[in-house]
Amino acid sequence: MTHPWHPIEGGVTAPEGFLAAGITAGLKASGKPDLSLLLAPPGAVCAGTFTTSVVRAACVDLCAQRLVASGGHARAVLTNSGQANACTGERGLADSLTATRELAGRLGLEPEDVLICSTGVIGVPIPMDTLLAGFGPLVAALNSDQAAGDAAARAILTTDLIDKQIALEADLGGRRVRIGGMAKGSGMIHPDMGPPQATMLGYLSCDAGVPAELWQAMVNRAVDRAFNAITVDGDTSTNDTYLAFAAGQPLSPEHLDALEAGLTAVSQHLARAIARDGEGATCLIEVQVEGAATEVDARAIARTICGSSLVKCAVHGRDPNWGRILAAAGRSGVAFDPGAVALWLGDHQLMAAGQPLGFDRPAASTYIRDRAAAAYLQDDTVLIRLGVGTGPGQGRAWGCDLSDQYIHINADYTT
Amino acid sequence: MTHPWHPIEGGVTAPEGFLAAGITAGLKASGKPDLSLLLAPPGAVCAGTFTTSVVRAACVDLCAQRLVASGGHARAVLTNSGQANACTGERGLADSLTATRELAGRLGLEPEDVLICSTGVIGVPIPMDTLLAGFGPLVAALNSDQAAGDAAARAILTTDLIDKQIALEADLGGRRVRIGGMAKGSGMIHPDMGPPQATMLGYLSCDAGVPAELWQAMVNRAVDRAFNAITVDGDTSTNDTYLAFAAGQPLSPEHLDALEAGLTAVSQHLARAIARDGEGATCLIEVQVEGAATEVDARAIARTICGSSLVKCAVHGRDPNWGRILAAAGRSGVAFDPGAVALWLGDHQLMAAGQPLGFDRPAASTYIRDRAAAAYLQDDTVLIRLGVGTGPGQGRAWGCDLSDQYIHINADYTT
Repeated sequence: MTHPWHPIEGGVTAPEGFLAAGITAGLKASGKPDLSLLLAPPGAVCAGTFTTSVVRAACVDLCAQRLVASGGHARAVLTNSGQANACTGERGLADSLTATRELAGRLGLEPEDVLICSTGVIGVPIPMDTLLAGFGPLVAALNSDQAAGDAAARAILTTDLIDKQIALEADLGGRRVRIGGMAKGSGMIHPDMGPPQATMLGYLSCDAGVPAELWQAMVNRAVDRAFNAITVDGDTSTNDTYLAFAAGQPLSPEHLDALEAGLTAVSQHLARAIARDGEGATCLIEVQVEGAATEVDARAIARTICGSSLVKCAVHGRDPNWGRILAAAGRSGVAFDPGAVALWLGDHQLMAAGQPLGFDRPAASTYIRDRAAAAYLQDDTVLIRLGVGTGPGQGRAWGCDLSDQYIHINADYTT
Repeated sequence: MTHPWHPIEGGVTAPEGFLAAGITAGLKASGKPDLSLLLAPPGAVCAGTFTTSVVRAACVDLCAQRLVASGGHARAVLTNSGQANACTGERGLADSLTATRELAGRLGLEPEDVLICSTGVIGVPIPMDTLLAGFGPLVAALNSDQAAGDAAARAILTTDLIDKQIALEADLGGRRVRIGGMAKGSGMIHPDMGPPQATMLGYLSCDAGVPAELWQAMVNRAVDRAFNAITVDGDTSTNDTYLAFAAGQPLSPEHLDALEAGLTAVSQHLARAIARDGEGATCLIEVQVEGAATEVDARAIARTICGSSLVKCAVHGRDPNWGRILAAAGRSGVAFDPGAVALWLGDHQLMAAGQPLGFDRPAASTYIRDRAAAAYLQDDTVLIRLGVGTGPGQGRAWGCDLSDQYIHINADYTT
């Protein structure tokens, strides 16, 4: 994709007018940062996409309701990490309401202007005294500099190994526009987010003004091509949320396509970063599918391959057991002609026109091909490319390998 | 379920008139048994259910076509283990045709009377010289005794640790009827089988006569309640197949319900055995869902929970991190009221009416409850029971925990 955007330093505070903060309030037993705040300028529009799970946290319901009621406007989002506040019964909503009301008071905002996201163990309520005691230091730490963005990005993490941030800048008709983003993973990652209804959490800031409805539509498309195209473990969370703020002088209509390209690029960067930092991951898997009937079909096949435990284990073992890729494609729910399949691992073609390459070759060349493919698998990103026909549909999805470490992390998470 | 069936010794050769054999033909590098044969009496009807994957092995196509063409009749099924013969291009079908033709000749049958199932590595053809050389010893070993059934059940295994067999007997109106079965797992297990279209392989023999169409309908229902309700790793295979033979004096209509109960019991036993012997498994997980709108809804929720990597890891860690169970239910695609949810781990109730139990209890009792739940998790079978409302729909599904061993088995399977 060619677009006018180039990377710059920073994250959510790179765009003009956005403030952020991140502190350690004591919500996590580990003593790591656990309270994060993003504050958008007055008049900000906010587009949200949320988990489509039937079982979703009260904070998710609250965010969705407030965005609907406001017609897509909000000023601030609080994030606590350590407790998901999902499956906490009536207390879940009451605590979310209290938190946003108290924080709004300190920020000089209405409660309805403040959103809340929670991530951590499901079924555990937020220690409210600790939370509320953190609001003073949190608000005092608000700043527009990069250090504040960094702190905010760190305070939303749970089992993540690294923070995930990006900022892009473009010149759109002589005007400097910036988009910033931050996100967290890294388990229970298989976002399935719909418009005003993902525990991945993602936040985006943009210093160009866009009408709320248009902004939501752009965000929906970007989410489908980014977060809804990643998987770590197939488990869609109760708390997945992506909130995208835009505030600034209105952008002229001829630059909207360019803006959406930037929005998509930021979202895809964050989504890939979540997949690469999936629990226990040692590499990123990118699957590209082409020749499908539609982009949606292509993405569905690509994501099914990314989600296959057997493909993930084969990649972890750096083992070109490519039959598992085909098996996963076959169960994706998308119809295609197996006789038209072509498959590449990196630059190494393994199938053409539905036939495996190499059966009729001397054993040595098969060996070399497989070794070459195995060597390719040593790279940090494993690229799987699958052709399924001659249709116009192309799509990409991202995942990671499945390692012993994933088991260790998740067999002992609460105890 | 009350039914007139009781277990007896043996497997597929327990019913009258069925012969079986299993030998080592040399198809597996390990030197383990790899060639299996089941021979039904003249006039046998055969109901088949096969993987619904778009990418399926030529042998699966061949079985499905032959059963359609014959109106649900077949006499024999050959199974080779070691090579799946899927994704082997044109050679796959040619080899399957050759194998069934040659074997038919030795058995005095028409090629169309013989079915073939393959299991092993995808993308690898069957060494035909080795296969064909095994037919003499294989046919010579055919026998109706239990040892022959045991040998057949062992020769279909791949990464399975144990063979899976069962035989039931009932007195139906003064007549002794027997049903026998065998099956194999143990990876790429998430069967999604439809009528005349599973690499689980399952075989059933019954010495009562049933009209072919009726038998197929009964088998379809049993498969939905058994194999289509298990999952090991979420990967539906290219080769999953269940073949159920019935041959004998026609059964009078008033006993058909009892027969179906036996058919379902045998199928569920084999399905549970596959789940318990899933790659790397240390325990069986059974999920019972009640109060859903329909049986199909209940089973869908139950299977989604069984398939959750996070639930599987929590069970492996013997960690009552029950929030993951709710999260999995929430993404099952089935609508229910989270406020109506009740949850038990064994006899330990963890939620009622959508509220977690224990928040308002002293920390000690929460601790005891969690310990008791953790102790329960030491059992060989972990029972998760979830109520989702007041509907009439009940359903069960089976899976296993996710262990380091699964990763080791699947990171190194072909190399």
